[in-house]
Amino acid sequence: MRSRIGDTTPNDPVAPDSAIATPPSQLPERTRSAIAAVVGAGNVLEEPRERLERSGGLSYLDLLRRRQPTAGIPTPDGVVLPGSPKQVQQVLDVCVEHDVGVVPFGGGTSVVGGVTAFRGDKKAVIVLDLERLNRLVSVDPISRTAVLQAGVRAPDAERMLSAHGFTLGHVPQSFERATIGGFAATRSAGQASSGYGRFEDMVTGVRLATPRGEWELGVAPASAAGPDLRQLAIGSEGTLGVITEVAVRVRPLPDSEHFEAVAVDGWERGSGLVRELAQQGLLADITRLSDVDETAVQLQLAGTWKTSALRRYLSARGVDSPCLLVLSWHGESADRRKKAMRLLRSGGGVWLTSAPARAWLRGRFGGPRQRDALLDAGVCVETLETATHWSKLGTLYDRVRTALRRELGHPLIMCHVSHAYETGASLYFTVLTPRDPEDPIGQWERAKAAACEAISADRVGTISHHHAVGMDHAPYLTAEIGELGRDVLAAAKRAVDPTGILNPGKLIG
Amino acid sequence: MRSRIGDTTPNDPVAPDSAIATPPSQLPERTRSAIAAVVGAGNVLEEPRERLERSGGLSYLDLLRRRQPTAGIPTPDGVVLPGSPKQVQQVLDVCVEHDVGVVPFGGGTSVVGGVTAFRGDKKAVIVLDLERLNRLVSVDPISRTAVLQAGVRAPDAERMLSAHGFTLGHVPQSFERATIGGFAATRSAGQASSGYGRFEDMVTGVRLATPRGEWELGVAPASAAGPDLRQLAIGSEGTLGVITEVAVRVRPLPDSEHFEAVAVDGWERGSGLVRELAQQGLLADITRLSDVDETAVQLQLAGTWKTSALRRYLSARGVDSPCLLVLSWHGESADRRKKAMRLLRSGGGVWLTSAPARAWLRGRFGGPRQRDALLDAGVCVETLETATHWSKLGTLYDRVRTALRRELGHPLIMCHVSHAYETGASLYFTVLTPRDPEDPIGQWERAKAAACEAISADRVGTISHHHAVGMDHAPYLTAEIGELGRDVLAAAKRAVDPTGILNPGKLIG
Repeated sequence: MRSRIGDTTPNDPVAPDSAIATPPSQLPERTRSAIAAVVGAGNVLEEPRERLERSGGLSYLDLLRRRQPTAGIPTPDGVVLPGSPKQVQQVLDVCVEHDVGVVPFGGGTSVVGGVTAFRGDKKAVIVLDLERLNRLVSVDPISRTAVLQAGVRAPDAERMLSAHGFTLGHVPQSFERATIGGFAATRSAGQASSGYGRFEDMVTGVRLATPRGEWELGVAPASAAGPDLRQLAIGSEGTLGVITEVAVRVRPLPDSEHFEAVAVDGWERGSGLVRELAQQGLLADITRLSDVDETAVQLQLAGTWKTSALRRYLSARGVDSPCLLVLSWHGESADRRKKAMRLLRSGGGVWLTSAPARAWLRGRFGGPRQRDALLDAGVCVETLETATHWSKLGTLYDRVRTALRRELGHPLIMCHVSHAYETGASLYFTVLTPRDPEDPIGQWERAKAAACEAISADRVGTISHHHAVGMDHAPYLTAEIGELGRDVLAAAKRAVDPTGILNPGKLIG
Repeated sequence: MRSRIGDTTPNDPVAPDSAIATPPSQLPERTRSAIAAVVGAGNVLEEPRERLERSGGLSYLDLLRRRQPTAGIPTPDGVVLPGSPKQVQQVLDVCVEHDVGVVPFGGGTSVVGGVTAFRGDKKAVIVLDLERLNRLVSVDPISRTAVLQAGVRAPDAERMLSAHGFTLGHVPQSFERATIGGFAATRSAGQASSGYGRFEDMVTGVRLATPRGEWELGVAPASAAGPDLRQLAIGSEGTLGVITEVAVRVRPLPDSEHFEAVAVDGWERGSGLVRELAQQGLLADITRLSDVDETAVQLQLAGTWKTSALRRYLSARGVDSPCLLVLSWHGESADRRKKAMRLLRSGGGVWLTSAPARAWLRGRFGGPRQRDALLDAGVCVETLETATHWSKLGTLYDRVRTALRRELGHPLIMCHVSHAYETGASLYFTVLTPRDPEDPIGQWERAKAAACEAISADRVGTISHHHAVGMDHAPYLTAEIGELGRDVLAAAKRAVDPTGILNPGKLIG
């Protein structure tokens, strides 16, 4: 790593919570007791530690700010743990009456400032932590749907559904912590999106608590009863309501999983092959192509083969700039696999055994944890992502890398396609560079802004394929959906949240 | 037919246009000339015939009203034919300034009052006929997308795309007349939706003209940049803007098409088998199951086999209540076909040769034409449709039939599933009964209301799976999307159309 990005200055260790000056809670006593009357006094937390823990998400800047006690972290004035959708509604009613801001909180894994305890024009803001909404409400095995409460974490959802023989198949990198409600609120996409779809494709219904009362959407798999308002609730990031229950499509647990890894020569050919798989209906349930730089790191970390030997092996087979393609098929897949592998071989792909795929699988939730060690070592490390149509993918890839290099000098930029569609694909970048000890926050803020501008210019890509908008992407949303789009979202918000208590400052800023 | 529904009283013939008293145009002269300055005087039509032709859609009541000159048809005050998206915007700007209502008009095939020239609170209303927006704007063969102007009719879209080797694959019953813009505005679903998806699944971008200026949506196949506003524009039925261009996903023209027909024993078993096909990923591109009554009529009309001989043949194979399942696969399909047919055989399905499937295919756009002959003969004939999850499909089927029988006595009710999903399916009903000569309009209005109430009660089904809302379903929309949903749509409308000139009275009433 050092040889690739240069020397770093070890970072400050994580500040102990006690070192962070937590501002005193501004929650008025009468508000606190009105909320306590709904959820019970034990479910209103005001300890600094509880409030700090839910003060933001897991972006690089979130982590950095927690290491710099002086930086001033927006801290909620209280944490409320409602026990049911009805209690969520009642707490909202109290917050409307008392004009207190509400930040809905699931796994707290936002990397775009989606759960920052920003108070906007409110004197106080609470975090509504949905962890007690942890039930599988119902399973309909005939329709293959299930209703889950919003606070159910992904592993618990899988555990509860598997008792009925079903899986959701939604496995984003945030899997270990993230919740069903968070997936819906942010239009999440999991690593197996090629097989199971994006989260919005799985949702058949949504139940929300709003300042104007409960709102239930979705009575059929598809409808022509006007615009699909489910698709307005999904991705609303807590600004149009607190999602309390989600009805999802489930599938039978696959009886087997099959892995392959293939090396292809160069990014252009590699992404071309993924395009062919997508357009011929041959994507594996997980289909993930790394560029040359990411491949080099992955093969090194996988450690199965000595990298130099592998390079010679691949070079002898015409693959001089290896790009790793990881594939995973769920359930009976012999036919599909055969066709996909034939297509890849005819495109010059070289089979690598399943070892690199299994290595990726083992480490696939580890990214967030590795980050802490890298931060300790003084590395600026962050990810960002976008998507576009196939004909613009090369342009988007080049523009983002150029922008990051312009701001950061010689960073290590790794990229992969992990979500492919017939008409286009996502690009997921991981950036590593020595931390600027003088201005670490400004360093990344400038790089991130440059990348966002490169994505937004000429509407070449979407500002987010699956991380959502939060506060970080809000300045770029208008370029994508237009002033009219922003006005429509603002009007929708006023209709359900006239006093603006819901997740201040997010999505539309 | 007569033996099934009883005697009818032949209807009045179609009234000649001259017999219909067309109210004089209320379009102020200065408005007319301002519009003419944009589109040219030859593209502003005020002849009674032109106005009458675009006074409504093709529902049974639309047809009936045209046979009863006294019934008072809402007639537009002028028909405007813009030649480009820019001209559409300029005409809207004039209409905002002059406070004139605008009804966007494509193929005019709405069966729910979606293009009724209702003026709401406006003194005048024009029909904006998009027939001159008939161009294929661009094709992106790499991304497999194409941009089509809104007024392109479906057959022309297929013809223009086929020159590039592509197809849209969107084939609703309105195919011969309906337009790309209309498909998007109404969330259309074609007969091959199992293979090609619903129209909203094909749309990657939309361009609209609105009273507040142009609005463009969609930069990537998928995005987490907030709610998917494309899904707000799609299904907005001309109330949030005039769709002028649609970017769609296209697919290579299939090199072959393969048909099968299978008879299964009874509706319950038949819908169960379609469910299994859907949940195992084995749906044919067209998958269409008729109930016992529809099957009897279809087999009679197909005329390939004598019905009595066929009944004996099926009965000997355990199929006493035959339900016809028509299947069509596009392109290379041997694997899929083999699996699907195996599943059907193991469920008691009896292969019928491809003849009934081919017969259905020949007649599949004929329904609207047959209706005129039936109307002449004094038959009340109309269709209605809905959708729900699999576990409620039987309940929905029973409730709608019971409601129609309660109102109509002994109608012939035929039903089919033509759109199946993993979690549910649509139900499409065709109703025939002797026309009540005293009150033919009231007769159907009461039956339709009873059916809509049966669908809406307990939110058991959606008020429309692919016909849209228009004016006819507007009273039932709140039951489906809630007061909040209606308020959100109204707020969105105010944001883009502050003075309410767009398609008065539609969708949210």
